[in-house]
Amino acid sequence: MPAEPGSGESLGEFGRIRRFFAPLAGPGGLDLRDDAALIDSTAGTSLAVTADAIVCGVHYLPEDPPELIARKLLRVNLSDLAAMGARPRYYLLTTALPRDVTDDWVARFAAGLGEDQRRYGVALLGGDSVATAGPAVLSLTAIGELATGSEIRRSGARAGDRVWVSGTIGDAGLGLAVLRGAYPQLAAEHRAALVERYRLPQPRVELGPRLAHLAHAMLDVSDGLLADLAHVCEASGVGAHIEAAAVPLSAAAAAAVGQGVEARARLAAMGDDYELLFAAAPETTESINRLSASLALPIAPIGWIDSVAGVRLVDGNGTEIPVASMGYRHF
Amino acid sequence: MPAEPGSGESLGEFGRIRRFFAPLAGPGGLDLRDDAALIDSTAGTSLAVTADAIVCGVHYLPEDPPELIARKLLRVNLSDLAAMGARPRYYLLTTALPRDVTDDWVARFAAGLGEDQRRYGVALLGGDSVATAGPAVLSLTAIGELATGSEIRRSGARAGDRVWVSGTIGDAGLGLAVLRGAYPQLAAEHRAALVERYRLPQPRVELGPRLAHLAHAMLDVSDGLLADLAHVCEASGVGAHIEAAAVPLSAAAAAAVGQGVEARARLAAMGDDYELLFAAAPETTESINRLSASLALPIAPIGWIDSVAGVRLVDGNGTEIPVASMGYRHF
Repeated sequence: MPAEPGSGESLGEFGRIRRFFAPLAGPGGLDLRDDAALIDSTAGTSLAVTADAIVCGVHYLPEDPPELIARKLLRVNLSDLAAMGARPRYYLLTTALPRDVTDDWVARFAAGLGEDQRRYGVALLGGDSVATAGPAVLSLTAIGELATGSEIRRSGARAGDRVWVSGTIGDAGLGLAVLRGAYPQLAAEHRAALVERYRLPQPRVELGPRLAHLAHAMLDVSDGLLADLAHVCEASGVGAHIEAAAVPLSAAAAAAVGQGVEARARLAAMGDDYELLFAAAPETTESINRLSASLALPIAPIGWIDSVAGVRLVDGNGTEIPVASMGYRHF
Repeated sequence: MPAEPGSGESLGEFGRIRRFFAPLAGPGGLDLRDDAALIDSTAGTSLAVTADAIVCGVHYLPEDPPELIARKLLRVNLSDLAAMGARPRYYLLTTALPRDVTDDWVARFAAGLGEDQRRYGVALLGGDSVATAGPAVLSLTAIGELATGSEIRRSGARAGDRVWVSGTIGDAGLGLAVLRGAYPQLAAEHRAALVERYRLPQPRVELGPRLAHLAHAMLDVSDGLLADLAHVCEASGVGAHIEAAAVPLSAAAAAAVGQGVEARARLAAMGDDYELLFAAAPETTESINRLSASLALPIAPIGWIDSVAGVRLVDGNGTEIPVASMGYRHF
């Protein structure tokens, strides 16, 4: 017995699922009408599975466009799959929403998911929707596919590996600062570019799987370049030094904070970049440069893995630059 | 760089993951230290995937023992896997917790998961933990395994099938009523039995997969026997009639509300039973009875699938019994 719309204002849980979410279901999702979804196994492949949640007022603002909230939630999870070298395939979504969230908000949220589903080739498999008396909590489980044994873990970095990072660093952190009123003198186009990078990460879903036989260790930068590199070093039992001048900046970031090593040090401690940070043997340099060209995605060599525990940021003379904060602290 | 404990009172997000949750990780969970977990594929099998969330104040009470909250959350998801005929294997957990939740609460919650992991043979693969200014929201994604093509969907019921249900019906609903002060005259043992059924469902993880070649359609009873049977009928394009006298009652339920058809009608509209409700051809009756005996789990024939849309509850003369409510309404 399908639930009736609860009132004139809302379609209710079942109504919203039927109207907004069932059209997003892939073949294994069984139209979201069954107790569980199905994924058939493919010989020689493994699945990568990850889950990330966001909370209204913490990870996004109540007035943020629901399409963008949905797309960011999906993208941060796809970024985790890319960081393992997996291609995204499916996701499940659990929403805990206040009762005053309107059908229109849900429709726009689902439309954002639909847009990015097409972009990234993923499909909804299922989930749950519940009501909460507090702020919205949105939780997504993403599932990707990779050739068995081709995963790129955090723990494989070796002394002598080169450290690389895709794209540019610090834009999202600056974008959040702009939203909070910082950099009022900055040109509107730069402000918009930084805010866009905060609101809509670009998960490197093409790059991640193509690094399967090149990178020794990888993760996606979410806590900050230095903090996340420290995660790789700790998991691998190694250390690293990063050349501050090599940390890649966007034009907008350079306009906001300059291009000096102190500015780069600050940006390397910001979070939410969702770029791929990886370690690879020096002899793969040409392959990585070719990959960068073929994807039209800058990939910058920024330093080296060594055997001294910890992460050091150094200037052009190899002198260590003090870093006030290594990155985002959870909780 | 692992996060430091935030203060004397709390281990912080990373500390809690390391201390309480990493010991629950299975081999593919990579000690919860990587961006995603891994599941290797097995030829000829498929995965079943489901997600369910619970909210403090809605699905459980703040003062409920954290061990039981964790076990119920896991079990309601395992029940969904069983309802597809899948054997439980893995899960991911996302917790959105208020900042005043103590490490002790989290430790007890994780201990509850650990106990049921051993019982059901599942392992933690990953997840996320975030803070919320509102009530706790706990979301779990469960993953099971089944032989490809052996899934039991809701949509396969056929006119002439017998309708069966495992265990007893209405206990959990009565248990919730007891917690709210109802049935004060009921014997303490019966009250305890009903509350236990509310707090700790028994997912029928052994029965579900064994019905793979017997049941045409199946689901687990969460909204209420009649409401959930209506879901099967709608998905299958059939109807059903249920003999009220055949709805199986526990001794505690009978002591609380009696054994008359009106009492059974009320219990058949309560939710949270997490029993398996299925339709199967009449010639499988002996096989189902043997299965019931081998599992030491009652499985009761309660009616028939027919071709008249809707679900009818009938008395011994075949006369329809009016039902005030078909079951739990979402939202």
